[in-house]
Amino acid sequence: MHTISIIGGTGSLGSGLAWRFAQAGNKVIIGSRDAERAAETAADINSKLDKDIAEGMDNLSAAEAGEIVVLTIKFNHQRSTLEQLHDAVQGKIVVDTTVPLVPPKVARVQLPPEGSASIITQQILGENVRVVSAFQNIAADSLPGDAPINCDVLVTGDKKDAREAVVQVARASGMRAWHAGPIANSVAAEAMTSLLIHLNKQFPGAHTGIKITGIPD
Amino acid sequence: MHTISIIGGTGSLGSGLAWRFAQAGNKVIIGSRDAERAAETAADINSKLDKDIAEGMDNLSAAEAGEIVVLTIKFNHQRSTLEQLHDAVQGKIVVDTTVPLVPPKVARVQLPPEGSASIITQQILGENVRVVSAFQNIAADSLPGDAPINCDVLVTGDKKDAREAVVQVARASGMRAWHAGPIANSVAAEAMTSLLIHLNKQFPGAHTGIKITGIPD
Repeated sequence: MHTISIIGGTGSLGSGLAWRFAQAGNKVIIGSRDAERAAETAADINSKLDKDIAEGMDNLSAAEAGEIVVLTIKFNHQRSTLEQLHDAVQGKIVVDTTVPLVPPKVARVQLPPEGSASIITQQILGENVRVVSAFQNIAADSLPGDAPINCDVLVTGDKKDAREAVVQVARASGMRAWHAGPIANSVAAEAMTSLLIHLNKQFPGAHTGIKITGIPD
Repeated sequence: MHTISIIGGTGSLGSGLAWRFAQAGNKVIIGSRDAERAAETAADINSKLDKDIAEGMDNLSAAEAGEIVVLTIKFNHQRSTLEQLHDAVQGKIVVDTTVPLVPPKVARVQLPPEGSASIITQQILGENVRVVSAFQNIAADSLPGDAPINCDVLVTGDKKDAREAVVQVARASGMRAWHAGPIANSVAAEAMTSLLIHLNKQFPGAHTGIKITGIPD
């Protein structure tokens, strides 16, 4: 079990992941620009689980308190948030869920010149941070509650031990997760999200995801 | 039904797609740098189906003869092949299956500066060619025979009518195919192939693919 901080943890993806991680028995710290809202989200998790397992803080305090720090922030807040948290996350595992969506055309892949959001994260945080990229394809709507999650998690990162930790956290939280290679491979998962949004627009009520096929039993 | 030419049609992906397209009742033209080998692949298909539905030619003649032209060539032959076929494919639908793999690290995503292989194809062939990108994630080994294909086809392209034609060809050939947006979105499918190669290396005997989940019935 880990102490996992969720930066942007009051948003739909952040609070949903926090819920699943807490259900799996991890201590969860909700970070937000608004510490009061963070405390509300944490209290909601504690009340549902009838445990004292979640806590709310401002983003910087959350980043300092976490052993694993998960970024669930919008692409246009990525750089400013990471610069704020840079010192607090040195030496830690940072899990990047950022998808480089550029509104209004979010169903169109528009990758940044650096290559991908995760590469930007690694560049800003530096080599002393083990950046792992994951959870880009999970529909946030599928995370509340207890239903099985019908989407695989592609976990990429340059440090295998850090990747393994995130694979294990995801699996313990009921997700099918895979080692998917170096951080350079994160672009596949990041780009896929725009395709899934494109599919969601075609099928009312759809919350699309992906599953890896063809792994022998 | 269409007349579909397969450039590089004696390779494993090309001959496998040709087989499935012919099974679905399309007329198939096998193109190769070696017209004699192309004729052998075509004869093999005709013999298996007990029909006269496939024909072999050199690549240029095949491109001229086809109504839909499918490129199944290696990334390092992409530019020279397309320059050779440029005039022959004007006004046609060109289906690009190219994945920008850079040996020896084929399990690592290494996108070209242009963004993706399909964007290069569109740039070389020009705006009078309707480039549609598809079939990047299908394991070539899964195409011979009659077994169901356990991998979805993500079809991207800027012209919806051309995309629809390719979606219909794929579905008629027993594949689950989706409209996945503009040609800019092809990068998701192209990059995914390196992740699938990475997974195949982890699981001996695996021929991984992807399936879209979460589409309501």
